[in-house]
Amino acid sequence: MIKVTVWNEFLHEQNSESIKAVYPNGIHNEIANFLNMNDDITVRTATLGEPENGLTDEVLNDTDVLIWWGHVAHHEVLDSVADKVRDRVLRGMGLIVLHSAHYSKPFIKLMGTSCSLKWRENDRARVWCVNPGHPIAEGIPEYFELEHEEMYGEFFDIPQPDEQVFISWFKGGEVFRSGCTFKRGYGKIFYFQPGHEEYPTYKNINVQKVITNAVRWARPLNRRERIDSPCAKALEQG
Amino acid sequence: MIKVTVWNEFLHEQNSESIKAVYPNGIHNEIANFLNMNDDITVRTATLGEPENGLTDEVLNDTDVLIWWGHVAHHEVLDSVADKVRDRVLRGMGLIVLHSAHYSKPFIKLMGTSCSLKWRENDRARVWCVNPGHPIAEGIPEYFELEHEEMYGEFFDIPQPDEQVFISWFKGGEVFRSGCTFKRGYGKIFYFQPGHEEYPTYKNINVQKVITNAVRWARPLNRRERIDSPCAKALEQG
Amino acid sequence: MIKVTVWNEFLHEQNSESIKAVYPNGIHNEIANFLNMNDDITVRTATLGEPENGLTDEVLNDTDVLIWWGHVAHHEVLDSVADKVRDRVLRGMGLIVLHSAHYSKPFIKLMGTSCSLKWRENDRARVWCVNPGHPIAEGIPEYFELEHEEMYGEFFDIPQPDEQVFISWFKGGEVFRSGCTFKRGYGKIFYFQPGHEEYPTYKNINVQKVITNAVRWARPLNRRERIDSPCAKALEQG
Amino acid sequence: MIKVTVWNEFLHEQNSESIKAVYPNGIHNEIANFLNMNDDITVRTATLGEPENGLTDEVLNDTDVLIWWGHVAHHEVLDSVADKVRDRVLRGMGLIVLHSAHYSKPFIKLMGTSCSLKWRENDRARVWCVNPGHPIAEGIPEYFELEHEEMYGEFFDIPQPDEQVFISWFKGGEVFRSGCTFKRGYGKIFYFQPGHEEYPTYKNINVQKVITNAVRWARPLNRRERIDSPCAKALEQG
Repeated sequence: MIKVTVWNEFLHEQNSESIKAVYPNGIHNEIANFLNMNDDITVRTATLGEPENGLTDEVLNDTDVLIWWGHVAHHEVLDSVADKVRDRVLRGMGLIVLHSAHYSKPFIKLMGTSCSLKWRENDRARVWCVNPGHPIAEGIPEYFELEHEEMYGEFFDIPQPDEQVFISWFKGGEVFRSGCTFKRGYGKIFYFQPGHEEYPTYKNINVQKVITNAVRWARPLNRRERIDSPCAKALEQG
Repeated sequence: MIKVTVWNEFLHEQNSESIKAVYPNGIHNEIANFLNMNDDITVRTATLGEPENGLTDEVLNDTDVLIWWGHVAHHEVLDSVADKVRDRVLRGMGLIVLHSAHYSKPFIKLMGTSCSLKWRENDRARVWCVNPGHPIAEGIPEYFELEHEEMYGEFFDIPQPDEQVFISWFKGGEVFRSGCTFKRGYGKIFYFQPGHEEYPTYKNINVQKVITNAVRWARPLNRRERIDSPCAKALEQG
Repeated sequence: MIKVTVWNEFLHEQNSESIKAVYPNGIHNEIANFLNMNDDITVRTATLGEPENGLTDEVLNDTDVLIWWGHVAHHEVLDSVADKVRDRVLRGMGLIVLHSAHYSKPFIKLMGTSCSLKWRENDRARVWCVNPGHPIAEGIPEYFELEHEEMYGEFFDIPQPDEQVFISWFKGGEVFRSGCTFKRGYGKIFYFQPGHEEYPTYKNINVQKVITNAVRWARPLNRRERIDSPCAKALEQG
Repeated sequence: MIKVTVWNEFLHEQNSESIKAVYPNGIHNEIANFLNMNDDITVRTATLGEPENGLTDEVLNDTDVLIWWGHVAHHEVLDSVADKVRDRVLRGMGLIVLHSAHYSKPFIKLMGTSCSLKWRENDRARVWCVNPGHPIAEGIPEYFELEHEEMYGEFFDIPQPDEQVFISWFKGGEVFRSGCTFKRGYGKIFYFQPGHEEYPTYKNINVQKVITNAVRWARPLNRRERIDSPCAKALEQG
């Protein structure tokens, strides 16, 4: 059984009527629901507004794969929580970073780069698979379309991905490395671009398949007991 | 001084009036001319119709970087020449593979994959840089456009490039990993997609800059005297 | 159920009394036996001396992962068989290449390089894991020792591996990239250095674990129906 | 002209008689001296004890490549300086990280991992080249020896390097990925393991060649004006 925690900022769905109409129970529950339909996956959720942002040691100790969605309140995530997430990934926890979470604290800390990119609202996207034998692409056609999606464009300031799984085409003239894997420490990270809050992207069957595949791919196989980094410790205390 | 040999199949420009109108002296001379404007580069050309396809030992011994353009006559290239090119690359010679040369014998032998891809004539292309600090991208803007270019689309069956430098967008809905580096043995290889014979692609200033940068990047630094591969030898003799 | 075919040259074990003493039923059966102890894996074997080297279309159609051991008779493997193996890998079949099979025809064809290396008989080896979260390293300690193994040393002329899983230390002063993954087409390839025929390497529990893990990692997820490469076809027919 | 700044913690050479005997003017001046013998390189130095750790905006604005040596006082480096160094690298400045600087703040920030490793004093090292065509390996033999060097061993917790240039063998039984390149943003990073303060490693001709090559390789080709990362800014202000 793979234990997944879906973390969501959960602000848009409470503050905007139109977004609430798309995801009445929040993006986290939308994702939890389709994942829970798999016998080998069990899901809990956590949100920004909960104590310790919902990510207590108890929760993280019981998490194999963490999914992260955030947008307007990255800076409100506690530094202590972001540090803990980074540390857990290095020790083996899987991390799936969705859409605007490219600017989340845990992702920036793990990448080491600015993670900046271009963006523009509402464009048509085609997600092309450039690594068809990859576990995350299992059952995905050569491409799939998202009629409405936020455009994210290059230059995307990330380290070259260990594996490039998807590259997206946008009608307006941009391309984007939209499905990228990274190994960091004992952990596996998957960044996946689709998922603007105003569109029903997480109801798309291919998007759901990709995220489900990624959960299985990112599950920990070995775990590292502790990370022995004096400087990292100094940074955390500093 | 970097010694470049530009190899061209040189059939279209002799057999088609409209293509001759674009490249009256052949694609090889078009490329040779803009490269020759650099003080640190000296260029010769070679074509399919010459003895040993123009690539005698004498020529290859005097070549630092080989540029390859071919399209309809890949199968007419001598196997012995293709084997020699592969061997030279493994010993340090640079290789720049242009456009339809993705199906050339030397490239397929060096990649090990089928190198197949999608294609469609005449589309608008945007070449995006996804590795702006790379030597091959020196002086190139974040993207440049080619009003008329043949569409090449994914899935492009190549090994994951060592470095992804460019990704192209095509108006019709495709993306393509259009600028890719590979190290093989002591040698450096750059594949670059633009360059359909019917359009004046090699007169484009950015295309010229990319190829010039690639020549400098691919020049040999160390050379290996010989390749000691019994099985490779058996294959060559077999 | 993962269908594995273990291919062995199977000459040493028939021609040398001392090697026969180590592997009385051949290296292929040694490997088949420990793999068969897993409920999710079923194994057949094939050897050089069988018609079509034991790798008929019927056998290959029924193979998810092919394991290859060869040494003194690489050149006796039929070119048609080597081409078929390459083609199957590009369409999704997994390939595990053991020890001296670095010089086998299928591996050289898939790598594109000479695959040459240094070697010396009988040294002590330590196999270090440099990618502890990788599926192939599941359950493997930070290093394990092989008291007697053939030394293989750098420079190993392969493309930079997609993932470096193991690096070996040899008492005599060499290092070797001994566990390497490569994706080619839809297929996954794992090269693993240990396994000289004179020593009981394949009876080592960690070696067995690595190969078992690699079988699971290399199983096909998607398959490609055919490879559309005119030049590859021309090469095969040429 | 490539403008290099060599940064050194510069404590050992003042506090220890035996280390002062090896590097009477400090490691920074040892490195500056051999670099300054090249017509295309000009060098300044900076140390921990200077105001702003010697790395004012004025100095950084005038630096193409920064070389970093530190050991016991990583935590004393100002966070503001570490952040600036990271930011400059993302905008194009080259960074060469030596030996125990694997635990320096800028390197950990740029890698995103713990950068932990094994270590043991005084062992014999052999530095093997596994990428002989790489610019950083120009003129370097297949291996070179360091009679006395600190052992650094795997598992080294770094992202898989973009390019593996050197792997070291240690007599005591360890291997180490000792020469690693990383691209981050517009900048190039080279980590190089040799250089324990008690041994005259930086007087070794091959070590000097590697560092000189790395300076040329890491020089900026394009520069990015600014990094637009709201979260990064929040982190810096937070």
